[in-house]
Amino acid sequence: VKVGVLGGGQLAQMMALAGFPLGIKVIALESTQDCPAGLVTDVVVGDYTDQQKLKELAEQVDVVTYEFENVDVPSVESIETPNVYPAPNALSISQDRILEKCFFDSISVPTAQYFPVDSVQDLQQAIEKIGLPAILKTRRFGYDGKGQFMIKAQEEIEQAFSELGAKNLIVEQKINFDREVSCIAVRAVSGETAFYDLVENVHVGGILRTSTVITENSNVNQLAKSYAEKVLTELNYVGVIAIEFFEVKGKLIANEMAPRVHNSGHWTIEGAVTSQFENHLRAILDLPLGSADTVGYPMMFNVISKHPEISEILKIPYAHCHVYGKQERQGRKLGHITLSAINSESLTQEVKLLGSLLKE
Amino acid sequence: VKVGVLGGGQLAQMMALAGFPLGIKVIALESTQDCPAGLVTDVVVGDYTDQQKLKELAEQVDVVTYEFENVDVPSVESIETPNVYPAPNALSISQDRILEKCFFDSISVPTAQYFPVDSVQDLQQAIEKIGLPAILKTRRFGYDGKGQFMIKAQEEIEQAFSELGAKNLIVEQKINFDREVSCIAVRAVSGETAFYDLVENVHVGGILRTSTVITENSNVNQLAKSYAEKVLTELNYVGVIAIEFFEVKGKLIANEMAPRVHNSGHWTIEGAVTSQFENHLRAILDLPLGSADTVGYPMMFNVISKHPEISEILKIPYAHCHVYGKQERQGRKLGHITLSAINSESLTQEVKLLGSLLKE
Repeated sequence: VKVGVLGGGQLAQMMALAGFPLGIKVIALESTQDCPAGLVTDVVVGDYTDQQKLKELAEQVDVVTYEFENVDVPSVESIETPNVYPAPNALSISQDRILEKCFFDSISVPTAQYFPVDSVQDLQQAIEKIGLPAILKTRRFGYDGKGQFMIKAQEEIEQAFSELGAKNLIVEQKINFDREVSCIAVRAVSGETAFYDLVENVHVGGILRTSTVITENSNVNQLAKSYAEKVLTELNYVGVIAIEFFEVKGKLIANEMAPRVHNSGHWTIEGAVTSQFENHLRAILDLPLGSADTVGYPMMFNVISKHPEISEILKIPYAHCHVYGKQERQGRKLGHITLSAINSESLTQEVKLLGSLLKE
Repeated sequence: VKVGVLGGGQLAQMMALAGFPLGIKVIALESTQDCPAGLVTDVVVGDYTDQQKLKELAEQVDVVTYEFENVDVPSVESIETPNVYPAPNALSISQDRILEKCFFDSISVPTAQYFPVDSVQDLQQAIEKIGLPAILKTRRFGYDGKGQFMIKAQEEIEQAFSELGAKNLIVEQKINFDREVSCIAVRAVSGETAFYDLVENVHVGGILRTSTVITENSNVNQLAKSYAEKVLTELNYVGVIAIEFFEVKGKLIANEMAPRVHNSGHWTIEGAVTSQFENHLRAILDLPLGSADTVGYPMMFNVISKHPEISEILKIPYAHCHVYGKQERQGRKLGHITLSAINSESLTQEVKLLGSLLKE
């Protein structure tokens, strides 16, 4: 069984590694052989907007998927056979912050107040309604905090507007959240679903740093699952999806969604019975899903900018290293480390040990 | 970092998969590219007794190891650089049932009574001392029950002797055991050790069928670890070792040892914090070992002769499939399935489900 993946980064790499034991071969489409997926599996070298290359990939696999949501929708739609999962409707929505907000509204999943912005006037009127601070964002192609401007004062309005390119923008109310959380969920071709425990995410400079599994059986866990279920059902979705929320006083406000395996789900490799990567493959190949139950007390740390000494990290007995094989670069995700622990006290101890080793 | 493995079967395959996340590339030496390791990593195609091929492998890796104990010792000794782990002393001992028994004797690890046999007279005299039934075995190159003859009656003595080739034999007292167990242990270059929980093994026709982790903190678990520790220390061993014992009334009698990752340790991939494959790599690369603690209640089933329908197996939510990518053949190990469970009751239920699906 073969699966084609648009993109050859660490997500495709980990998908490939999850596939091997099941006899599933992942083939990546990436602009260079020298990519994380290329270290572990075959790569079709080419651009994912190149119809010829897409065809070359599609012809040798049983299903096509992708590892990033900024895939060109017409390119994906041009693939007639085999099936592409998740289907392009989820891509279109998640690529456009306004469509995304409208979608959440349409299924009664709460969002921050927002307005489309195409002129300074739009922006001023919106801010009169939602107040300051507010966040101006590009509608499309933002990631890791890029394409965003936090407006704290009236005087910044014009600067924000021009800095972000002065069109196709959205302004959102700044949510004063207690914590940021995300829900990893999965739905198979058969309609079967599974939901991982919610994680608390910490971002610094717009980049995810840590994800900690919320193991207590909280209301917020139930609430997230009910929202995720609505999303999956409404989209007739197939594959893994990640939905990010702001938690405010026990309520959840949807921020955005990613129609793919997600960084905040990397802990599932060791921290859940079945990883998000394996369940994504099972989902798109019409196989039964595996249990998404959490094992122990997991926490994930991203390795950013600089590789730590692996021999130091591995001194922590419950640490698992994942090195993606990328060159060091400021702000780049190079790998991740998952700590698993038998209780929350031992997790705290391990976190302390790891903290002293992880410096950018 | 690169690791050369003599052999390209499923053990090398799973070692390769364990290495990728740590940035460790495994390269196998195997007589054909079309082998389980070849599905996931690079293979140097050649015979492991071919000095030229050994040199070709050795030159491109940082350490050499092997996946089967019947490696040619002079071949291994011919590798001057890099290091070969486990060192050839363990190979020599485990290749010869008499040396093995002598070794266990020398460190006061109990064994069955045994005698070398090079003539029918030897055999008759031995059987007078140890009684019947007794097991006649070839000293060297037995595996999966091959090269063995269970002698139940005096009349079978001559037949057994001639069937096994009439020289270099050993006869052993037949132990009336309560169960067969094995201990997977690991020792690193630094001398650090880790011990997995003992497993109970069930063999049918000489081939391992199931391994069930003994999670209760029993005396026999402690005893096995103390014996394994003696073995590791005495051999100044580096890497994973498997030691098989007969359990009789709470005592352990060593049967044999394998200086490598072992089928009865496959459960550690999902069932332990760190798998035997990862810990073997860490051990031979002078890295700290990971925790060998058991996670949940794991049990492993070998898939033999015929592949079950993977979509059926995966209906069991806690089942993990490992398909090695081999052609079906009577008596061949094609893969394994690990069940993990949150308690022994749910394990029993899963075993029942799986039992109906696994038929040879």
